Amino acid sequence: MTETTMLPDIQSQIDDRGVELDRVGISGLYYPLTIREKGGGQQTVTACVALNVGLAEQQRGAHLSNLVEALHRYREAAFDLDDLVGFVRDVRRNQDRRGYTFEKAEICIRFKYFLPRAAPSSGTVALVPYDCGFDVALNGQGFKSIVVGVPIATVCPCSLAISDFGAHNQRANVIVQLWQCLDDQHFLWFENIIDAVESCASSQVHSVLKRRDEKEVTERMFRAPRFVEDVVRDVVVSLRHDLNDVRYNVRCESLESIHAHNAYAEASGVC
Amino acid sequence: MTETTMLPDIQSQIDDRGVELDRVGISGLYYPLTIREKGGGQQTVTACVALNVGLAEQQRGAHLSNLVEALHRYREAAFDLDDLVGFVRDVRRNQDRRGYTFEKAEICIRFKYFLPRAAPSSGTVALVPYDCGFDVALNGQGFKSIVVGVPIATVCPCSLAISDFGAHNQRANVIVQLWQCLDDQHFLWFENIIDAVESCASSQVHSVLKRRDEKEVTERMFRAPRFVEDVVRDVVVSLRHDLNDVRYNVRCESLESIHAHNAYAEASGVC
Amino acid sequence: MTETTMLPDIQSQIDDRGVELDRVGISGLYYPLTIREKGGGQQTVTACVALNVGLAEQQRGAHLSNLVEALHRYREAAFDLDDLVGFVRDVRRNQDRRGYTFEKAEICIRFKYFLPRAAPSSGTVALVPYDCGFDVALNGQGFKSIVVGVPIATVCPCSLAISDFGAHNQRANVIVQLWQCLDDQHFLWFENIIDAVESCASSQVHSVLKRRDEKEVTERMFRAPRFVEDVVRDVVVSLRHDLNDVRYNVRCESLESIHAHNAYAEASGVC
Amino acid sequence: MTETTMLPDIQSQIDDRGVELDRVGISGLYYPLTIREKGGGQQTVTACVALNVGLAEQQRGAHLSNLVEALHRYREAAFDLDDLVGFVRDVRRNQDRRGYTFEKAEICIRFKYFLPRAAPSSGTVALVPYDCGFDVALNGQGFKSIVVGVPIATVCPCSLAISDFGAHNQRANVIVQLWQCLDDQHFLWFENIIDAVESCASSQVHSVLKRRDEKEVTERMFRAPRFVEDVVRDVVVSLRHDLNDVRYNVRCESLESIHAHNAYAEASGVC
Repeated sequence: MTETTMLPDIQSQIDDRGVELDRVGISGLYYPLTIREKGGGQQTVTACVALNVGLAEQQRGAHLSNLVEALHRYREAAFDLDDLVGFVRDVRRNQDRRGYTFEKAEICIRFKYFLPRAAPSSGTVALVPYDCGFDVALNGQGFKSIVVGVPIATVCPCSLAISDFGAHNQRANVIVQLWQCLDDQHFLWFENIIDAVESCASSQVHSVLKRRDEKEVTERMFRAPRFVEDVVRDVVVSLRHDLNDVRYNVRCESLESIHAHNAYAEASGVC
Repeated sequence: MTETTMLPDIQSQIDDRGVELDRVGISGLYYPLTIREKGGGQQTVTACVALNVGLAEQQRGAHLSNLVEALHRYREAAFDLDDLVGFVRDVRRNQDRRGYTFEKAEICIRFKYFLPRAAPSSGTVALVPYDCGFDVALNGQGFKSIVVGVPIATVCPCSLAISDFGAHNQRANVIVQLWQCLDDQHFLWFENIIDAVESCASSQVHSVLKRRDEKEVTERMFRAPRFVEDVVRDVVVSLRHDLNDVRYNVRCESLESIHAHNAYAEASGVC
Repeated sequence: MTETTMLPDIQSQIDDRGVELDRVGISGLYYPLTIREKGGGQQTVTACVALNVGLAEQQRGAHLSNLVEALHRYREAAFDLDDLVGFVRDVRRNQDRRGYTFEKAEICIRFKYFLPRAAPSSGTVALVPYDCGFDVALNGQGFKSIVVGVPIATVCPCSLAISDFGAHNQRANVIVQLWQCLDDQHFLWFENIIDAVESCASSQVHSVLKRRDEKEVTERMFRAPRFVEDVVRDVVVSLRHDLNDVRYNVRCESLESIHAHNAYAEASGVC
Repeated sequence: MTETTMLPDIQSQIDDRGVELDRVGISGLYYPLTIREKGGGQQTVTACVALNVGLAEQQRGAHLSNLVEALHRYREAAFDLDDLVGFVRDVRRNQDRRGYTFEKAEICIRFKYFLPRAAPSSGTVALVPYDCGFDVALNGQGFKSIVVGVPIATVCPCSLAISDFGAHNQRANVIVQLWQCLDDQHFLWFENIIDAVESCASSQVHSVLKRRDEKEVTERMFRAPRFVEDVVRDVVVSLRHDLNDVRYNVRCESLESIHAHNAYAEASGVC
């Protein structure tokens, strides 16, 4: 029995409502994937995936099982952002088998990505988790994009300046998303962007700090007080220095130690 | 003692990094607010608030305490979206006291909003929660916006057509965001948008259903099977019929009963 | 037509699997409720409710719509923990109409509860949110219980002692749950427990701090360094001093500024 | 320089508050770990870890960096629950170096664990994510424990019986936790418990279903209607049949398609 001849294909019915859909697909799909690391290794991650195609006015529905089948085959190889562009091109081509043209296809994946970090004095190494991801959109001009979420520590410059001793400080999260043209040859590694962000913080965070490390980190962060405004601006200055023809969005949200709410800053632009 | 003369004002320092910030402010602030209802009443909600101003290149930081103080005063009165536009204008004006021009100011608030829903046969009434919100941006042309999140039930048309009996169905969430010009005179009530969305579902959801209601809801939803694609398109058709000069984004995500992941559809446009 | 005669009642079928259920009911139900405040006022909150009954071996199912109907009627009046005990007793009695004995009935509600907090120097008042709740269980001996979640700031005593200047500090969350016998006459107010917790912190948090307040809060917290271990122990000492015949669980989780993970401490006992 | 001689050791100070702590440690630590699979393979997961020791009355604090260092070393090898018992024993022993006796040590880890599932008609294979975890407590008698979270589909027996056609159905989550004595020789595999739970559902869920699979799954689930009460009881009956001397807790929460809230059932016992 061939499936398409025996069972009605409701998704392929003609739709006359005159509404094109920007995205039709699946979301909240967890899948193990393997990411190429800058150093040449690879890392197995637990990714949350959204995978969508555009849908022309006249087609009622998309066959979503094809999207998951494609991802399942793809998971076997380690990949980077440029490989993922190829994957999304395949997805678009394969959805197209009934004569409908899917001009759009998009993937958005997010995962914890781990990097080893050495404590500054003892040199003890442990892993720090970063909230990373890739976005690819084939959609008009299209783009490829990486996103990194970097936990940092911030010491408040105002509190430090006005107080006789001490200053409030806290964990903050910096999110940097960078968009490139699909054929941009300059490869962006998570590792480089994460390093750049950490150098803009009062201090990077660590997973292990022995006492002499804690002393060094404490003193270091009090020598480098930063508002969320400062962190965002320093990251933008750093990106402008290092990159070309890249659109950026930089956000910093600090879990203020003296408030139950957060402080927030954001900047966007092209460098 | 006047505060500004005695303590250094780090935020007012001149900044020379050449980076304008799109948003500086507070996020994740929970506050009780009072919303005007369409019927003339009012409803106290627990809102999550983000309140930001733009920051010119040359100013180092914003005084965030002013933002929370403004919100605290504002919480005393019941408000609707147009009142909120007035509030954001006040915030922008008040941040502007040191000669810096804050062209941008934005608020984003989200809360559970409750409407009574009668069961279809017994008439038993209970409240259903909707994830609603307001966005206002003074920023270039600016906009005012409402968002509604509406839980619905969807019966799969494919499953219904191909199976000898039954069909998979599930809870789905529809999110509709509508943007208007700041001076648009046509007032958009949550209640109207929610009604419109519910009429596009296989069935609306209820908080109380007696057995005879459950029978009626079950049969009703099997008479109105809908893909997420159908729900989004029907909502768009309904919005296009009712509204003018409004930008819309409509999303539907269904918690597929036969999968651990979701089905998703989205459309955007202007009606 | 009376519902029970015309439609089959599947829930009332005899079950022969020999498995008694500890809890059957509804969860994740959002409802607006009104809580009595210590000062004599009342506060409308958005509560997340779980409401369950026990189910005897021989009954197949519970009629869950009754639970929501009961809550809907109950929401009209302001209540405190002792009123809620009465509500749960009513729920149990009303489920019992077909001759089955529901010995167990439980409610668990959680909500943001707001208290005004004055900044220490300027006296500026704003609201701080606390994650509060009530649990009642009629179940053998049964209990009534309140829970408070209190955001605080903690300065690390180790970092302060070993560093030449500064110390890492962060937001932390303290959760205190207290269980009493159902007929305990000593009434426990959220307000009192929250005050007790805040007095054990390096500093309480505020929603508005002017610059001179920020100076005072910073210096205050550096005079009162606290590990999570210290916070938990101080809260326990305070509870033991104030309460009698109350079972407690005290937890503190600090969002370490120098780590991406949290520090945690917990103690339980009876005072 | 040896760290302990040069820097003050605040954590090792004598505490005179008379409060023993049940748990002191770290929480919310994400780490990549490698789990042994039943089939002989291994799986790299992204785990969220809480690792705690008990703290005697007289000691002020615990040295948390040791806990993370131990985990970092441990991550290099694939492990199962019995290996994890060995790890926690090592952690307890190593914290004990200053003459304090840590009688208690506990670990709690949670992660997405993936199993291949074949569609019933086409045989197409894709991965389904399960929310799994291990708990080990050395604490008095102590225990070792596995937890599985299994997404399933449930068709409502009441809706099916009272409606002329159709029935509401939805995704539900079943959580089974099993506790054994530390020296219990009967090894519990995630795979077996997950299979047992899926056989108690109206249907298991899949990540890929072709149309003929969707037909089969739909019809299958309408032949096997289940309340949350039924699912929990069937799982308990299955556990009682298969296991000995194991304490269980079984919960089922269904994301009701006709409500915005969930239905819930729970049972506990020893088999």
